[in-house]
Amino acid sequence: MGIIVQKYGGTSVAGPEEIRRVARRVVDAARAGNKVCVVVSAMGDTTDRLLDLAREVSPSPHPREQDMLLTAGERISIALVSMAINDLGHEAVSFTGSQAGIVTDESHGRARIVDMRAKRVVEALADDKIVIVAGFQGVSESSKDVTTLGRGGSDTTAVAIAAAVKADVCEIYTDVDGVYTADPRIEPKARKRREVSFEEMLELSASGARVLMLRSVEYARNHGVKIHVRSSFNETEGTWIVNEEDMLEQAIISGIAHDTSEAKVTIQSVPDQPGVAVRVFRPLADAGVNIDMIVQNVSAEGHTDISFTLPKVDIAAAEPILTNLAAEVGAGGFTIDPDIAKVSVIGAGMKSHPGVAADVFEAIADAGINIEIISTSSIRISCVIRASEVQRAVNVVHDRLKLAEDIHLDGDLGEHAA
Amino acid sequence: MGIIVQKYGGTSVAGPEEIRRVARRVVDAARAGNKVCVVVSAMGDTTDRLLDLAREVSPSPHPREQDMLLTAGERISIALVSMAINDLGHEAVSFTGSQAGIVTDESHGRARIVDMRAKRVVEALADDKIVIVAGFQGVSESSKDVTTLGRGGSDTTAVAIAAAVKADVCEIYTDVDGVYTADPRIEPKARKRREVSFEEMLELSASGARVLMLRSVEYARNHGVKIHVRSSFNETEGTWIVNEEDMLEQAIISGIAHDTSEAKVTIQSVPDQPGVAVRVFRPLADAGVNIDMIVQNVSAEGHTDISFTLPKVDIAAAEPILTNLAAEVGAGGFTIDPDIAKVSVIGAGMKSHPGVAADVFEAIADAGINIEIISTSSIRISCVIRASEVQRAVNVVHDRLKLAEDIHLDGDLGEHAA
Repeated sequence: MGIIVQKYGGTSVAGPEEIRRVARRVVDAARAGNKVCVVVSAMGDTTDRLLDLAREVSPSPHPREQDMLLTAGERISIALVSMAINDLGHEAVSFTGSQAGIVTDESHGRARIVDMRAKRVVEALADDKIVIVAGFQGVSESSKDVTTLGRGGSDTTAVAIAAAVKADVCEIYTDVDGVYTADPRIEPKARKRREVSFEEMLELSASGARVLMLRSVEYARNHGVKIHVRSSFNETEGTWIVNEEDMLEQAIISGIAHDTSEAKVTIQSVPDQPGVAVRVFRPLADAGVNIDMIVQNVSAEGHTDISFTLPKVDIAAAEPILTNLAAEVGAGGFTIDPDIAKVSVIGAGMKSHPGVAADVFEAIADAGINIEIISTSSIRISCVIRASEVQRAVNVVHDRLKLAEDIHLDGDLGEHAA
Repeated sequence: MGIIVQKYGGTSVAGPEEIRRVARRVVDAARAGNKVCVVVSAMGDTTDRLLDLAREVSPSPHPREQDMLLTAGERISIALVSMAINDLGHEAVSFTGSQAGIVTDESHGRARIVDMRAKRVVEALADDKIVIVAGFQGVSESSKDVTTLGRGGSDTTAVAIAAAVKADVCEIYTDVDGVYTADPRIEPKARKRREVSFEEMLELSASGARVLMLRSVEYARNHGVKIHVRSSFNETEGTWIVNEEDMLEQAIISGIAHDTSEAKVTIQSVPDQPGVAVRVFRPLADAGVNIDMIVQNVSAEGHTDISFTLPKVDIAAAEPILTNLAAEVGAGGFTIDPDIAKVSVIGAGMKSHPGVAADVFEAIADAGINIEIISTSSIRISCVIRASEVQRAVNVVHDRLKLAEDIHLDGDLGEHAA
């Protein structure tokens, strides 16, 4: 009994069959006495197909118009889900992002929610209707244009709606049934977590775990929205994302994330002068390039190498800037290496267990894998290695940290073992 | 130099290639010094594919949700057309029906425009932007829900926008290059008209000519919007739909329309009493069945046969009502005959040339074709015949009325002859 927000991703509403199954699941939750609001993504690969269509028409699609185009995807899925629920005898009503009151800034393609005016959603729930909201989309504050929240934005929509309607839980339905100690596709011994703290989930998402979009976790933490990540294909309890103080048990290590979407840039032989880092990173930031790990090697003869990682998708934007600035700062040149992977170990318990970093480095070294960059936070250790070694690195670290046999064994152990 | 509204149908924006061609045509009009607003339909068969999808999900799709679904189609096409125009170096901006201020009643699937609040369109045109508006859709006055205007509704959108922005002309681009004296697919000698009056076009549309939706012609007449029907595949001058008093020349006969979308119902041996017609037609009207031609034969022995036509799509709704009322009024029974066609001759000049009807009947009789029902207005004669005879009937009437060699021969003669 309460208010539940359920979010279904593209694979959960891939076709008519899947849509009817989602409808049954939603109606079950309503018949159990809950008020239910459902956030859905576009069906299957609709968004990719619309992007392909845009590129067939235009070499560089206008951002405002691309958002207008892409939002057609969720419009289709909310209408179909709502039809299917109505057919089951429960009144349902669909709302676009704009109708649901999701107000964003003007950044087409990666808009941020700046206000929630969910009056229509609140009223429809009060009328005992099941509300279907289009994920991923909003309307801009000043120009009243349609915007999108970026890849995975439906998670953020769900959390924002959950905060606005004061939901008891925001259930994120996906094709995995929770957050694992590592990606089960490359680590057969990976174990599902019962709980993960917001802080750990933030680091996991930022480090490449794809289960939840980073921004949705931030939003949930800031607004105190409890998230339950679970599978739309079974009834298994998934993973709860909660405040650290609300956790029933606290593991030392939450899990391992890996990321092969970044490239490594090295600017060689940069004169080692005050302010040189600003001159390097300011123009990249101004161009919207997301710099991740930065290391500056020890200076030798007044020169130093600066290395950092950036998303591969930003290489095209970064390259001309790098060419300019290498000349400007008098550097020896630069290299871009796309064949890297980042392996990150995340755990709030690391704050009180200083030996974890050494264990991680040792496990990787024992496997003969070279670590190229290291970066850490109080609850995260990240290592850049060759992309070809990523699975082996995850396996040896998972073994060394005994994540398969965590102190919180809860019966899930081995469930996903190959 | 002026304000032009251009409307492109689904075949004109069927794919990326077609969309880029439309974009060039639009930009040409803008570069010639005009302010241009473009109304587009959904790409190719998108609307039909979305309807199929709806039926795969739901046996009887919820009307509100079906409108939410279908409006995704124009959303896709406006975004793509706008991208293509932006690529040609002219600023363009797309608006949904709601954003363009098209306010309708609540009748999902066949909404009527009740107000135009085209502030955003007017402002964007004043800013020298090319404005792209989604056809076929609006937003309901009270519930703020997305609505659709019914099949062919994009024509109405175009005319309504043209009225709202005080356009000099509303150009309807289609896959034929104008209004013909008959459908060129069945009458090779059909001749394109230079001008047709609103009244004639209303009768032509109501009689089955598919070139313009009836409601768009009504709207244009009521708001004094000049329509130019022309082909998106060439630069040929099309047909102008204008006020009768603005016509440069007035033909006696405007053209022949035919319609095979109706069925004929005959209720047999109805007691010939006052009020019986009301008892027959009131329940059909209440069920939303569109009755067209009605004839009541001479009474014989206190009983009469009542025949009328109705759209074939309304048969399912009409049949149970007919069964009831045949019993109620004590009729002998009823038959539904779907194998009929209606051939109509339309011309404002008929008012002053009373011999036209006789010519039409004689031509059809000479061809050995039986006329089953006749109905006339001051500018129209319609005959119901067997569906199998429709092409021959059109041909003989076209010949008899000398429509291929009209007094206003204007060089188009024979352009489309086989």
